[in-house]
Amino acid sequence: MQKSRLQAAIINAASRNAALVIKNAKIINVFTEEIQEGDVAIRDGIILGIGSYSGKIELDAKGSYLAPGLMDGHVHIESSMAHPSRFANVILEKGTTSIIADPHEIANVCGTDGIQYMLDQTEWLPLSVFIMMPSCVPCTAFETSGAKLIARDLEPFMDHPRVLGLAEVMDYVATVEGDGEMLDKLQLFRHRPIDGHAPKLSGDAFNAYCVAGPHTDHECTTFEEVLYKYRNGMRIMLRLGSATRGIEEIMRQIAEHHVPTRRMMFCTDDKHLADIQAEGHINYIVRRAVANGIDPMHAIQMATINTANTYGLRHYGAIAPGYRADMVLFDNLTDFNPQVVITDGQIFEPKSDRHLKPDPKIYNSVHLAPRKPDQFRLPVDGPMPIIRLVPNEILTELDTEEVPTQNGCFVARDGLLKIAVLERHHDSGRTGLGILRGFTLKDGAIGSTVAHDSHNLVVCGDNDADMYKAVDVLEECGGGYCVIHNGKVLALLPLPIAGLMSDAPLDEILEGQHALLDAAHQLGISTTSDPFTTLSFIALPVIPAVRLTDMGLFDVTSMEFFREKKKRNPSC
Amino acid sequence: MQKSRLQAAIINAASRNAALVIKNAKIINVFTEEIQEGDVAIRDGIILGIGSYSGKIELDAKGSYLAPGLMDGHVHIESSMAHPSRFANVILEKGTTSIIADPHEIANVCGTDGIQYMLDQTEWLPLSVFIMMPSCVPCTAFETSGAKLIARDLEPFMDHPRVLGLAEVMDYVATVEGDGEMLDKLQLFRHRPIDGHAPKLSGDAFNAYCVAGPHTDHECTTFEEVLYKYRNGMRIMLRLGSATRGIEEIMRQIAEHHVPTRRMMFCTDDKHLADIQAEGHINYIVRRAVANGIDPMHAIQMATINTANTYGLRHYGAIAPGYRADMVLFDNLTDFNPQVVITDGQIFEPKSDRHLKPDPKIYNSVHLAPRKPDQFRLPVDGPMPIIRLVPNEILTELDTEEVPTQNGCFVARDGLLKIAVLERHHDSGRTGLGILRGFTLKDGAIGSTVAHDSHNLVVCGDNDADMYKAVDVLEECGGGYCVIHNGKVLALLPLPIAGLMSDAPLDEILEGQHALLDAAHQLGISTTSDPFTTLSFIALPVIPAVRLTDMGLFDVTSMEFFREKKKRNPSC
Repeated sequence: MQKSRLQAAIINAASRNAALVIKNAKIINVFTEEIQEGDVAIRDGIILGIGSYSGKIELDAKGSYLAPGLMDGHVHIESSMAHPSRFANVILEKGTTSIIADPHEIANVCGTDGIQYMLDQTEWLPLSVFIMMPSCVPCTAFETSGAKLIARDLEPFMDHPRVLGLAEVMDYVATVEGDGEMLDKLQLFRHRPIDGHAPKLSGDAFNAYCVAGPHTDHECTTFEEVLYKYRNGMRIMLRLGSATRGIEEIMRQIAEHHVPTRRMMFCTDDKHLADIQAEGHINYIVRRAVANGIDPMHAIQMATINTANTYGLRHYGAIAPGYRADMVLFDNLTDFNPQVVITDGQIFEPKSDRHLKPDPKIYNSVHLAPRKPDQFRLPVDGPMPIIRLVPNEILTELDTEEVPTQNGCFVARDGLLKIAVLERHHDSGRTGLGILRGFTLKDGAIGSTVAHDSHNLVVCGDNDADMYKAVDVLEECGGGYCVIHNGKVLALLPLPIAGLMSDAPLDEILEGQHALLDAAHQLGISTTSDPFTTLSFIALPVIPAVRLTDMGLFDVTSMEFFREKKKRNPSC
Repeated sequence: MQKSRLQAAIINAASRNAALVIKNAKIINVFTEEIQEGDVAIRDGIILGIGSYSGKIELDAKGSYLAPGLMDGHVHIESSMAHPSRFANVILEKGTTSIIADPHEIANVCGTDGIQYMLDQTEWLPLSVFIMMPSCVPCTAFETSGAKLIARDLEPFMDHPRVLGLAEVMDYVATVEGDGEMLDKLQLFRHRPIDGHAPKLSGDAFNAYCVAGPHTDHECTTFEEVLYKYRNGMRIMLRLGSATRGIEEIMRQIAEHHVPTRRMMFCTDDKHLADIQAEGHINYIVRRAVANGIDPMHAIQMATINTANTYGLRHYGAIAPGYRADMVLFDNLTDFNPQVVITDGQIFEPKSDRHLKPDPKIYNSVHLAPRKPDQFRLPVDGPMPIIRLVPNEILTELDTEEVPTQNGCFVARDGLLKIAVLERHHDSGRTGLGILRGFTLKDGAIGSTVAHDSHNLVVCGDNDADMYKAVDVLEECGGGYCVIHNGKVLALLPLPIAGLMSDAPLDEILEGQHALLDAAHQLGISTTSDPFTTLSFIALPVIPAVRLTDMGLFDVTSMEFFREKKKRNPSC
């Protein structure tokens, strides 16, 4: 804040010079846990005071509940596939006025240019977007990302007023081994917030992880895990995104056991646009928390002041003089339907879609070598490892068996598909090939440039021609999702921003997603969960049990490529 | 922390390499509010984990309660009159392992040299000493301090790892008026902790003060004031020092009304050595809080994690892996008698007194002009304003009446004494004179170079000769307290460090204080409260109603000197 602005705010408060006054609200005080009565006076985005006020604009709350603007403690904007300005509109409507975003995905494609792009594109939004610096780019050494970020690359961002700390430290193996490059990053952010990411880690390794610096966790999947990590000092984020629903039982037990919630928060991590529009965003998590027995006041604290405290955002998360005027009026403390959202002192109204200018550093991110005729040729010399999809999970399992062949190479048949991951950042032509069970796709292929975490190009199909076609189509449009059937494009959602996000208006994105799903079902894909999400996680070499990266088929259990395994033990 | 040290700590945690293990303790978990069982493993000052451990040294807690080391949220070390290293020994014995210190007093005498001295002298202590940068040097424009500090002077300290934020913003008038110099400081520390100091401030002025930045308060004297400030976002410090005892009733009401305590802390502000030794330090406040009905777990949080959170001390205030190994074993949760104190991973034992080398920048701080024969001459031309001491308070009241004279000048008689404040920083010879009622002193004088906040030399007596003698004695020893009787020094406590602190061992200081009190009583001073404390506050022009500074007698109610008042209205 500039000195002149601070000075003006002080004088405005002292002289009761309000621009907007909210009247007749039940004001939620997250400090004393009371419902207060009074007017809230606002000017220039700052709360001037609570008392008896009049102002140029007066908003009659008619007895509704006025809460601080909601905060998402950990989110990847990229997962919405929408440009940040459009994503902002969707969540602001649900009462979320601040997010702590981790641009991990775009950083894996575009490196520091991607981080800078996200900072630039969120500069003048009505949503407060804070950035945690991606800690694991690349996520592992078993795939090829678009960039590698070491401590020295992150350092120039530290003075940016919206950069808070170090984002989820996923590489817990490097962390607890005291790996030098990881330590440089942890050291750099030693006195800043550091988010953890260590599902199911416990015992000595978990202690070492805590010592290393991460002090938040959003990966707990059981109440016991929450309690264990909480006891040991982790601040806990209860995550309810598109794919992570088990948190409700945890909420129920938190309420039942009266666990103090002051160090707990809410986050979405990854939530699709359609789900946000249908259910809500952080307000939905608050609603589910209350439905599961958590005191509404505590639930609101978890969605506001607790998050602000964790990330050192001193003027956020409460309704009090000097705080940023981010607030939301709710109908009641059960449903948490937002009625009016105030952000930066203004009543929020979604802006009409603006034209976004392509940034050459971020657009055109698909860099493939020219296709080769044998690029998808998969020789077979005995029983082959197969990636078996587990229904409704992003986990996979390993099958090893004889597969159909033609001229000594695998052919897709009998419920088995071919899958390929093409390195798309450095024109290397490197391609990993594998066999997939669980999709029942016929006469076609589906492809994606969204493939966590390195976001190479992944394509699967029952014939090479359609797979080639999918690759060509995605290369041409700068990335996205597509469905090919007998050489024709059935559906295509271009994601030209790093091959991850669209610059189109929201309706177009949602229509595109519907069209993709329709086309996938036309192709015969019969999974209950979203096949594109499944495809996007097939290349992530940290989730059990079998993954395919551009470097080859990977055994997550033993942390090695199958070709190395085979070299070690030719009979396996 | 160095990278190599962090790396070693991670490896030690992962490999269970403990140096000290505390066994059989009831471990207080400030996160979950549980009493845990288990061993606490420590090495190199860091907690490695809680579980089942063995170590080189094993400490059997025999079922005692193990709490995080206690923290004092706001303290002026100078008020103890002891060198910081000796002060540290006294409070460590009581279980206080960290303090947030405001070197306001020494800064008013020595400026940034004083702040640097306090940082240097606390560098290698077993006590963690964090520093808030003095915000109001000088405190007011109505007295002459040794230095003036503006934002530019504070800036070089901001990168010091133990400098946290901006200390108590006492000049709330300048603050709420948006004064430029004050704003520069508030602006500089906008995203750092900023302590408030605004007794009884409310309404629009209080709102403006909150907007300006201060967000803690340790000056509340009623429960209503606590609740009011708490609602408006202030974090509240409950202060129990030597002179501030009204907090117990506030504690009782906090407990009675179940006010959430997560944003409350404890502090001593100013507490004398003898009181600390007799009662305790932060452990005494915890004891009183529990006696007044506050849940012991909440009281311990208020003395540990709440303070750590307020000041962003992420590795302090809890017993968990990665936290600094500061802990205290208490006999029970009623008395909070410390049995063993662990600081930085070591069992604390008071160090034998070390020899302190005088620092020429800090010692020899008494700079007086040569005495003049008429320096204490106080002409009388009608009814005179008199400073009347209020028993057991540092407040004073105004009497205006005829006074005894000789040759047209005031003579001390009939329960009235003469009091003088001599500017002692810049050899100016400037002397304020006044008349004092409330001390019954005969044939002597008492003097002090501790005189909040500018710490000029204050002396009062019933004859000029003894007053001159007191000034001479204090000048010669570099400052301190003295009692003079008929030209003889009855007692003298030299305070050569800025005229505020002694470099002598604790016992000598305590003996010196006893000797001063004895001598004062010998002189006939019959106040129940400490006359030297009374004297030290007589020059503070922010406490009602009448004060004397080197610039003259000051009316705090109208904020003007009596000579100006008289000029304005000669009959008053």
